[in-house]
Amino acid sequence: MGLWFTEKQTENFGITAKVNRTYHTEQTDFQKLDMVETAEWGNMLLLDDMVMTTEKDEFVYHEMVAHVPLFTHPNPKHVLVVGGGDGGVIREVLKHKSVEKAVLVEIDGKVIEYSKKYLPSIAGELDNPRVEVRVADGFMHIAESEKAYDVIMVDSTEPVGPAVNLFTRGFYSGIAKALKDDGIFVAQTDNPWFKSDLIRQVYKDVAEIFPVTKLYTANIPTYPSGLWTFTLGSKIHDPLKVKEERFFELDTKYYTSSLHFASFVLPKFVEDLTKK
Amino acid sequence: MGLWFTEKQTENFGITAKVNRTYHTEQTDFQKLDMVETAEWGNMLLLDDMVMTTEKDEFVYHEMVAHVPLFTHPNPKHVLVVGGGDGGVIREVLKHKSVEKAVLVEIDGKVIEYSKKYLPSIAGELDNPRVEVRVADGFMHIAESEKAYDVIMVDSTEPVGPAVNLFTRGFYSGIAKALKDDGIFVAQTDNPWFKSDLIRQVYKDVAEIFPVTKLYTANIPTYPSGLWTFTLGSKIHDPLKVKEERFFELDTKYYTSSLHFASFVLPKFVEDLTKK
Repeated sequence: MGLWFTEKQTENFGITAKVNRTYHTEQTDFQKLDMVETAEWGNMLLLDDMVMTTEKDEFVYHEMVAHVPLFTHPNPKHVLVVGGGDGGVIREVLKHKSVEKAVLVEIDGKVIEYSKKYLPSIAGELDNPRVEVRVADGFMHIAESEKAYDVIMVDSTEPVGPAVNLFTRGFYSGIAKALKDDGIFVAQTDNPWFKSDLIRQVYKDVAEIFPVTKLYTANIPTYPSGLWTFTLGSKIHDPLKVKEERFFELDTKYYTSSLHFASFVLPKFVEDLTKK
Repeated sequence: MGLWFTEKQTENFGITAKVNRTYHTEQTDFQKLDMVETAEWGNMLLLDDMVMTTEKDEFVYHEMVAHVPLFTHPNPKHVLVVGGGDGGVIREVLKHKSVEKAVLVEIDGKVIEYSKKYLPSIAGELDNPRVEVRVADGFMHIAESEKAYDVIMVDSTEPVGPAVNLFTRGFYSGIAKALKDDGIFVAQTDNPWFKSDLIRQVYKDVAEIFPVTKLYTANIPTYPSGLWTFTLGSKIHDPLKVKEERFFELDTKYYTSSLHFASFVLPKFVEDLTKK
C-alpha cells in the first residue's frame, strides 16, 4: 500500500490518505509542520498531525470564512485575519474591492514560508500590496488594537497548542474592542459531532458580547465529520438581512448568495447547541 | 491500537474506526455482511466493506430520505422503500400518520435479520402492522407495480454489486410507472467530491422523466466526504413549494422544516452538476 497518513480525529476514529511524498517536515517554534503530496487531495499542510488545508478542498473553508462576513458588512475596508498563514482567507478577502487593507497576523512564520513554496494556488496573494503580513501573536495584536477593523476572521488551529487562547471569552472581548462600531467577526469553531461542548461554550461566550451571534456550517471533507461550524459575532449587521443588491458576482466554487443564507439553517442537533 | 476497520472510500482515501468486537460476519447470497461494535459510532453495519449505517449517525440519512418527500406529498398513504433492510427509513416513514401501508422490498434477508438483532433502535419498526416486508428484488418489484405508490424511496447500496440496476434510466422509468399520478421518489445518489459523474448522469436521467427534479444534500460523517446527495423526482409536487401549514411537529435530530428548504440550496460545485 505504500505510505499513508492517518489522522486520529477522535480517540477512536480518523481519516487516512495515501501520501506520494513528503516535501518538508519540521518542528517549528510552535508546532509540528508537515507538507506532503497526497494522491487524493493534492498538496496538504499538516500541523501537529492534523489536516489544515489541501489543494482539492481548501476552497470551501476559505470562501466560507471570508465571504459570509464580508457580504454581511456593507462596506468592509479594513480586514484582519488571525492565523491563516496559508493565505487562503486572504486570497478570498481580496476579491472584495472595497477592502483597502488586509492584515494577516500569523504566529508561525514557517506556515507562511512553506505555504508559499508548496501551496502557491492558496498562498499566492500574500504578496499583494493590499496585504500586510505580520509574524506575531494574534492574541496580542487583538489586545493592542482598538476600533481598527471592519471585519476580523479567526482562522486558527484547534484549541490545543498555539491557538488555545483564541477560544476564550477574553479573546472575544478583545475582538469586540478591536472592531469598529459596526464590526463583524467570524471564527472557525470545529465540528458538532465530536466537539459539541466547545461549540456551545463559544456560542454562549460570543452571544454575551455581540448583539448578533449566529452559527453557520460548511462541508469540509478532510476535517472531522465533514461538517464544520463557524461562529459569527456582529455589533449591528445581521448576516440574514443582507439585501440582494449587496451581492456581486464572485468567482467561487462553494459560496453563493443563496448558500450565504442557507448555511445558517442548522440541522436540529446543531441548532440545539445555540440554545441555553 | 487493537482492531481497526478501514474503508477505502476511494483508491487513495478512507476512514478508519476502532472496532470493539465483531458480532457477525458472513458472505450472503448477495454481498459480504459484517456487524461490528465500534468505539466511536456504536454498532455499525458493513456491506462489501462499506459503512451502511451506524447507531450514532444513522438519523441523518434516514430522516432526510423519508421526510423530504413525505412532506412534499400532500397526503402520502402508500409508500415503498427499495432496499433499506436496516429499517431506518421505515421507522421515519411511520412518523407520518397519513401513511397506511409502507412496503419494504429488500433483496437480502440477512440484512433484515442482523439489523433486527444488532440495530434494534433502527430496525425496531419493521414488525409494525403498517409495514409489509418483502425479501425480493426491488428492480423486479418496481417493474411489476403500476400506479401503486405515492412515494418511493430508494435506499440502496452503491452502484456496484446487487444495486447496480438501481442507477439506470430504465429503473427510473419503472419508478415513474409504479408511482401514482402525483407521485414522488427519492434516491440516495452518493457524494459530489468523488462521484460527480454519477450524480450528473442520474440527475440528467431523472430530469428526462420527471417534470420536477431536484438535488438535496445532508451531512453524513461516516459516508465518503461527509456530504451526501439525494435526487428527488416528482410528477407534480415541488419540494420547494411546500406550504408552512403542511409541516407538523416531528421527533427528529436532523430534519426541520427550515432545513427541508435549505437542503436544496447547493454549494456551487454541486449545483453545477445539475446543469447541462
